[in-house]
Amino acid sequence: MGKLLIVGTLAFDAIESPFGKTDKILGGAATFIGLAASKYDVKSGIVSVVGDDFPKEYLDLLNDRNIDVSGVEIVSGGKTFFWSGKYSNDLNSRETLVTELNTLADFKPVVPEHFKDADVVMLGNLDPKIQMSVIKQLEKRPKLIVLDTMNFWMDHTLDDLLEVIKEIDVITINDEEARQLTNQHSLVKAAAQIHEMGPKYVVIKKGENGALLFEGNNVFFAPALPLKEVFDPTGAGDTFAGGFSGYLTATKNISFENMKNAIVHGSNLASFCVEKFGTERMQNLSKEEMESRLDQFTQLTQFNIELLNPS
Amino acid sequence: MGKLLIVGTLAFDAIESPFGKTDKILGGAATFIGLAASKYDVKSGIVSVVGDDFPKEYLDLLNDRNIDVSGVEIVSGGKTFFWSGKYSNDLNSRETLVTELNTLADFKPVVPEHFKDADVVMLGNLDPKIQMSVIKQLEKRPKLIVLDTMNFWMDHTLDDLLEVIKEIDVITINDEEARQLTNQHSLVKAAAQIHEMGPKYVVIKKGENGALLFEGNNVFFAPALPLKEVFDPTGAGDTFAGGFSGYLTATKNISFENMKNAIVHGSNLASFCVEKFGTERMQNLSKEEMESRLDQFTQLTQFNIELLNPS
Repeated sequence: MGKLLIVGTLAFDAIESPFGKTDKILGGAATFIGLAASKYDVKSGIVSVVGDDFPKEYLDLLNDRNIDVSGVEIVSGGKTFFWSGKYSNDLNSRETLVTELNTLADFKPVVPEHFKDADVVMLGNLDPKIQMSVIKQLEKRPKLIVLDTMNFWMDHTLDDLLEVIKEIDVITINDEEARQLTNQHSLVKAAAQIHEMGPKYVVIKKGENGALLFEGNNVFFAPALPLKEVFDPTGAGDTFAGGFSGYLTATKNISFENMKNAIVHGSNLASFCVEKFGTERMQNLSKEEMESRLDQFTQLTQFNIELLNPS
Repeated sequence: MGKLLIVGTLAFDAIESPFGKTDKILGGAATFIGLAASKYDVKSGIVSVVGDDFPKEYLDLLNDRNIDVSGVEIVSGGKTFFWSGKYSNDLNSRETLVTELNTLADFKPVVPEHFKDADVVMLGNLDPKIQMSVIKQLEKRPKLIVLDTMNFWMDHTLDDLLEVIKEIDVITINDEEARQLTNQHSLVKAAAQIHEMGPKYVVIKKGENGALLFEGNNVFFAPALPLKEVFDPTGAGDTFAGGFSGYLTATKNISFENMKNAIVHGSNLASFCVEKFGTERMQNLSKEEMESRLDQFTQLTQFNIELLNPS
């Protein structure tokens, strides 16, 4: 079974959307990535940090899904990372209300011995110094290192970010961040420039407008599934990354053709994530639901190529 | 050969984009629709109006492409419809600088006898009263009536627009207009509501984010081709509509499966349209270029379904 090493936050989130608000609930990039990847036949492990205010049930919830949490440091007397945000009425933008780094501020990640030979490493969105430290602890080069990041690190720690971008194979980034990183409006030009920074594969996420995968001149696009209602976008990008990396770990095939499927799988899982607050939908998602919606993706995007060229 | 009746404006356009500006050049919905449809094996004819300031070369240009212009009224002493607009730096919005209706203000369309039995009717964006008048002149129900419209008619002549929407089979509309027409943010809900207004098929255009086709619960999505540079978006929506209706007229197959291909063909032609100012790119587009880019669309969107469900 393929091994997937996940680095990212475990967190409390408090979310306001037009549909309601939550108290502090389970959140964090590693949580969403882990839950998504657990839908595939992988042995995954999380490297992260929490305070001793983090409920044991949350760690059990991950553990029950075959996610190894031995790499999660529990800081005695410390407090878990907390994020609170409020979405606009159309859910297309959000305002951060509170960010309390807490134990995350001084986090020194330690990769467990039994994950130093991971096949795939998924570096969730956090400080690029932490991402780099994890790469340096690996005992062999994984088949694939995937990195997710965001504009915050471009604004504040760009040099560190560029250092780690050099070392990875796949970057996932949203459209505005790709533009910010390259100063190019055209996403085609932005992707070309990011290739030159290191990553062989560039994934540009466009939220409700889907995701693009670039490998040089090869381009693939998967739409987001058109939904009647989006409830809470929190974690959709992480879920996408978890589906993408989990699928690639399980199938042990990192060809461009298979990466297209990984993009579809990531989009598929993200389409569920946004249907409820936080991790609720991902916790209870069945294989049958996943497969039925993959059929919808196929209907949505595949056409009869025989018909395309009438003559 | 299938007959396509096109109703829409013939116009002078003056365009400012970040890449330059034009004097008065050939424009208008019917022009772009006609040029796009002429890429397929169809007999098309335009119903429109111009003043005698409209150069004969422009009518010859259409005629040379097997577009019948006997339905174009030339008003002696009249002036041709003129539109001028300026695009924002990212080309995602535009400001109308000048609109002079001129001969269009009192236009009473007359469908030539030999187009009253058209197989497909493409009602380009203009006053819904004119669109309705054309439908009433037809001697038999066409296989398909496609209507394009815009927010202007929702703002000013909503009742007339709703009347004509009742009579048609396919509406093409952009995402913001679909939301305005239905007061629904979700495009899935908006499409469902537009279905209830009459059209069996709803096409929602999202510009650089592609296009959705709805037929009840059936949904298809085609992305726009990611381009290095967009030069001038003018006419892209009309070109899409022309490719869509031209392909359906030529293939004589209005199944949902074939409509998917029509959406791909429309998107394909629109991707060329935006590469130069006005109609320039569409005038000189070769079959080989079209086919090569259709291959790109296939690469961009089609994945290996065998690989999708590993087990």
